[in-house]
Amino acid sequence: MSETSGRFRHRTADATVALTLDGEPLADREVVLEQTRHRFLFGCIGFDLIDHANGTAADPEGAARNAELWEGVFNFATLPFYWGRYEPERGRPDTERLLKAARWFAERGHPVKGHPLAWHTVTADWLLDLDNESIARAQVERIEREVGGFAGAIDMWDVINEVVIMPIFDKYDNGITRLCRDIGRIPMVRMVFDAAREANPSATLLLNDFDMSAAYECLIEGVLEAGIRIDALGLQSHMHQGYWGEEKTEAVLDRFSRYGLPIHFTETTIVSGDIMPPEIVDLNDHVVDSWPSTPEGEARQADEIERHYRTLLAHPSVEAVTYWGMNDAGMWLGAPGGLVRADGTPKPSYDRLHRLVNEEWGTPRTVLTTDAEGRLRFTGFLGDYRITAGDRRADVALVEPGEARVEAALA
Amino acid sequence: MSETSGRFRHRTADATVALTLDGEPLADREVVLEQTRHRFLFGCIGFDLIDHANGTAADPEGAARNAELWEGVFNFATLPFYWGRYEPERGRPDTERLLKAARWFAERGHPVKGHPLAWHTVTADWLLDLDNESIARAQVERIEREVGGFAGAIDMWDVINEVVIMPIFDKYDNGITRLCRDIGRIPMVRMVFDAAREANPSATLLLNDFDMSAAYECLIEGVLEAGIRIDALGLQSHMHQGYWGEEKTEAVLDRFSRYGLPIHFTETTIVSGDIMPPEIVDLNDHVVDSWPSTPEGEARQADEIERHYRTLLAHPSVEAVTYWGMNDAGMWLGAPGGLVRADGTPKPSYDRLHRLVNEEWGTPRTVLTTDAEGRLRFTGFLGDYRITAGDRRADVALVEPGEARVEAALA
Repeated sequence: MSETSGRFRHRTADATVALTLDGEPLADREVVLEQTRHRFLFGCIGFDLIDHANGTAADPEGAARNAELWEGVFNFATLPFYWGRYEPERGRPDTERLLKAARWFAERGHPVKGHPLAWHTVTADWLLDLDNESIARAQVERIEREVGGFAGAIDMWDVINEVVIMPIFDKYDNGITRLCRDIGRIPMVRMVFDAAREANPSATLLLNDFDMSAAYECLIEGVLEAGIRIDALGLQSHMHQGYWGEEKTEAVLDRFSRYGLPIHFTETTIVSGDIMPPEIVDLNDHVVDSWPSTPEGEARQADEIERHYRTLLAHPSVEAVTYWGMNDAGMWLGAPGGLVRADGTPKPSYDRLHRLVNEEWGTPRTVLTTDAEGRLRFTGFLGDYRITAGDRRADVALVEPGEARVEAALA
Repeated sequence: MSETSGRFRHRTADATVALTLDGEPLADREVVLEQTRHRFLFGCIGFDLIDHANGTAADPEGAARNAELWEGVFNFATLPFYWGRYEPERGRPDTERLLKAARWFAERGHPVKGHPLAWHTVTADWLLDLDNESIARAQVERIEREVGGFAGAIDMWDVINEVVIMPIFDKYDNGITRLCRDIGRIPMVRMVFDAAREANPSATLLLNDFDMSAAYECLIEGVLEAGIRIDALGLQSHMHQGYWGEEKTEAVLDRFSRYGLPIHFTETTIVSGDIMPPEIVDLNDHVVDSWPSTPEGEARQADEIERHYRTLLAHPSVEAVTYWGMNDAGMWLGAPGGLVRADGTPKPSYDRLHRLVNEEWGTPRTVLTTDAEGRLRFTGFLGDYRITAGDRRADVALVEPGEARVEAALA
């Protein structure tokens, strides 16, 4: 049964379900209660399930195991739309493969987010052949195509990524930095948000950044003052250089919750091996031959994962956490940041998160007894529940924290 | 005669003065030309001349020498309006003393800037007794009082200082941080700029910060997108931790000139002693018993001052540089950052800057000869010039770079 003490009260409801069978209260009966879905978005990238979803995995059995592990903990997927990889040749986007993957998740009830629509890194090289006006037009058309074309399968987007450094990024020339430097950060944000909003008015649109300094605050305040509607703030949190700890995490939450917007921790990584040296500024600069997962590192990672998720769920502004890769195989920077080893075996962190999500915060199959009026009382995390009595069942949803009175007819 | 080569072309004019005496061209005559004022603002704080201007200096002779040294190089003063010192007791502002000081500078032809009108540091302690609405009202009234009351004597203000960290400043509680955190950075900037603009519509109003990162860019872009008119951008440049060098200075200029606004280097310090360790983040945290000026440090400082001023004057956006203290006595942090030692003797840096301002970039008394049509040709830095022929004289001003054709009647 759920952990529902003080710090998670905003995530739970005290439910009273008036249960009926064929119009009569189901009095004094044993029934089975089970949470089928968390309202909180326990997310992970779904990059390495794209082949599985398309039936093109090189190792179908391994991919199926990965998919099973993924769904054992996660309920929310992020899929890659890096322009330079999605459309390396202009006019030949990788639509079908991504659409199939998005539908695979969506059909299983897992909402999908596309990442990202505008970013200066891994952007299309062919933008360099265009003048800035044409780059802007290509960017807008790209957004219209993806956001419109994937609507229904993908209704959430990291619309623009890392705007703080976008116009001053100087590692290499690229079309997006050129454009952003030319028109300015806020007009850039406005342009891409307007295009995304128009292409799918019901989509959830995020601004996403790794910069947790006052710079991102200033950007957000400028964007909001300019009247641009942001649905959620994305905060990256790659911790290759060590777990932030509660104090830093809470300070970040404190500063970025000031805007009254939902917060998504969009990119969380905590490694189970050596920590990257602190002097590295751009994580991409850290290149190592091998970066093994170690027993001590795995024990530490499990503890840190638990502390991090506890801290995030305790803050009422946080609606989503996306872990940046379940499996060490193919992970960004070769880091042992996964919850599952490259050989497919779960690390302690996987088991820890599984227990938190499904047991401490979730409600596994539990036998309860209705009262004389057919009422079932329980406290649980917000989300979807199934009540089963014999071969009849009813689904109920807890949507708001606090007292919830629900009527449910077994069908 | 002026240094007028390529990199300073935007600071100079090629003047042709048609000189007349009693209505006739003054042909083939020797005249004396002298620059009396630079258009470029070679600024310095005037804090330690306040007593001199008020006739209350403890050491009147030393103060007079300081004043003479000051005017030997500088033509633009910054006076202190730190709220906590200016009005430590509510309703008893230090108006008379500051007004007298401002007039002393203004009457000598030196424009004065007040610094700052809104800042979380050294702000009035009594704001802590007020609620945020009352703090806002007190801040606005304070601006109206100072900007309106000093108009004519002070027509330039650092309206707000260090907004980037204002709402997240956590070293101690203060009313301005409380207010800024409550209403947000941009509404705070709008409020203080609106008040200052209304109190003196012809004043030059600056946004000022020490943060040279993308954070300040984001803040500026937000403020400009919000339609708030900024007359000039203030960039602090305290170099207690070492001279920036040309590359960093040029990169900063490149990034902050993107907005098409004049740039003021508002607070420049280059020390002639030990360099503060790089790990210090808030310069105020560096407390030392004594921080002596050394012969090697003074030689280095002179070179760095020259390099710094050359870099700044070479950039067309820069309209002012304010040095943060001519004399080591009473300097911020006890640093040997002055151009003059505590005993009143000039350091090499003073002589270097004096030569640059008055000789290389200025035009000291020079004998020239008019041509057959009474024309005088010379190239000089923008500013005011006096032409003397016997006991008659004419004043001309060079206001725009390039060719300048001026008529001047000796009077």
